[in-house]
Amino acid sequence: MKRFRVGVIRVITLEDRGLIERHGRIMEKAYPDIETLSICIEDQPKGIFDESSEKIAAPKIVEAGRRLLEEGVDAIFVSCAADPAVEDLRRIATGKPVFGAGKPLAALALAISSRVGVLGIGEEPPRPLAATLGDALISYRRPSGVSATTDIAESLGAIIEAARRLRSDGAEVIALGCTGFSTFGTAARLQRLLGIPVLDPVLAAASIIHHELIRASRLGELLEAG
Amino acid sequence: MKRFRVGVIRVITLEDRGLIERHGRIMEKAYPDIETLSICIEDQPKGIFDESSEKIAAPKIVEAGRRLLEEGVDAIFVSCAADPAVEDLRRIATGKPVFGAGKPLAALALAISSRVGVLGIGEEPPRPLAATLGDALISYRRPSGVSATTDIAESLGAIIEAARRLRSDGAEVIALGCTGFSTFGTAARLQRLLGIPVLDPVLAAASIIHHELIRASRLGELLEAG
Repeated sequence: MKRFRVGVIRVITLEDRGLIERHGRIMEKAYPDIETLSICIEDQPKGIFDESSEKIAAPKIVEAGRRLLEEGVDAIFVSCAADPAVEDLRRIATGKPVFGAGKPLAALALAISSRVGVLGIGEEPPRPLAATLGDALISYRRPSGVSATTDIAESLGAIIEAARRLRSDGAEVIALGCTGFSTFGTAARLQRLLGIPVLDPVLAAASIIHHELIRASRLGELLEAG
Repeated sequence: MKRFRVGVIRVITLEDRGLIERHGRIMEKAYPDIETLSICIEDQPKGIFDESSEKIAAPKIVEAGRRLLEEGVDAIFVSCAADPAVEDLRRIATGKPVFGAGKPLAALALAISSRVGVLGIGEEPPRPLAATLGDALISYRRPSGVSATTDIAESLGAIIEAARRLRSDGAEVIALGCTGFSTFGTAARLQRLLGIPVLDPVLAAASIIHHELIRASRLGELLEAG
C-alpha cells in the first residue's frame, strides 16, 4: 500500500522519538499510502517563533532537507506555518514537492470560506498565510501567554479563549497557524467546542502534498478510462 | 477500507453508465477510502457552458443533490468548474461537504503557484476560479473551436495549442477549468507535453472533499498521540 515517502523536518529540537515523529504519524494516518521519515534541527529548543529564530533555522532546515533527499524521499514537509527555507529547498529538490504548512493551510481555508480567522504564536500571522489569504484573513489572534510553540501545552484555556474571540470577530473557519497545535490535538478540541471548522496545519499540508504526489506520479493512470 | 460515500452530480445528460461514473472513478482511484454514487441531470446534452445553461441546470442539480442525500451520501461533488448550485445545496446538506470543482481547483493552484493560467470552455474563466485566484490568475484561454464540454473530445490539437499559449503568457501552472477535460485525461497529456504542472479539476475536488471528510469525522482520532 505505501507508495510515497515523505521526509518531515521538525523545526524544533526534540529528544523523544515519539514526539519527533508525531506530525509524520498524523500524515500516515490520514493518507495510508504515505510513509514518513522525520528528523529535527539542532540547538533550537524553542523552535521558530519570530524572524530571528527563523533566520537561524533556515540553513539547518536546508541541511536536513539535503539529508532527507539523500535518503530518497519523494517529498519534503517542513513542519512550520512560516514555510521556512521552502523556496531554498525547492531549488535542490529537483521537482519533488516541498511544502511548509503555511500555504497549504491558507489554500484549504480558501476552499471552504472567505472569512478566515488565524490563531498563531507570533506577533503577526505567518507571512505565507497572510499573503495567500489576502482579504479572506479577517482576524488574527495569539492566545494570552503564548509566544512560542513550547507554550502551547500549558495554555489550553487561553487557546480556547482566543479561538472564541476569532469566532466573535466573524471568522467562519479557524486556521491554526503553528504546527505545534497539531502536537496537542488542538484542532479537534476547538471544533468540537466552537462548532465551526478548525483546520489543522499538519493535516492541511498532508492533503496538499498527497495531491501533488499523485498529480506528479499517477495522473495518467488515474485519468485513464475504465 | 471504504469509509466515505460521495455523491457525484454530472451536470450533463449522459446515457452510458461508464461515462456517468467516470469522474467518480477518478476520485475512488485517488482516494481508496472514498466510494462514489453518480447521477446526471436530464435534458442538458451539452452540459453547462454559459450563464443561461447554468441557470437552467441549477434546480435540476438541487433536485439531484436531494436524491443523493436521501441515499445517505456523506458529501456531494457537483462536477463542474462553475460550482453551480453549490451554495443552494449547502443549505440542504446540513453540514456535509458540498463542492464543485472551481474553488478546490483555485485553492490547489494557489498552494503551488502565484502565476496560474486557466484553460476553459467559456468566454470568461469560471467565476469561482477568477474570484479565488485573484491576481494569481495571469491568463485565461479557450481552445479554438471549443465552446462546450462536448467539443473537448475532438479538439486535442487546439487544446495543446491553447495550453502552450498559457505557458508563453507566463503561467507556471495550468488549471483546467472544465471537468470535461477530466473525462479525456487531458491534464496527464498536457503536463507530459509541457513540463509544467497541470491541475485536473476532478482530482482537485477529490482532494479537497477528502480533506473535509476526514477533518469533519476523524480529526480527533488522527491527532491523538501514538
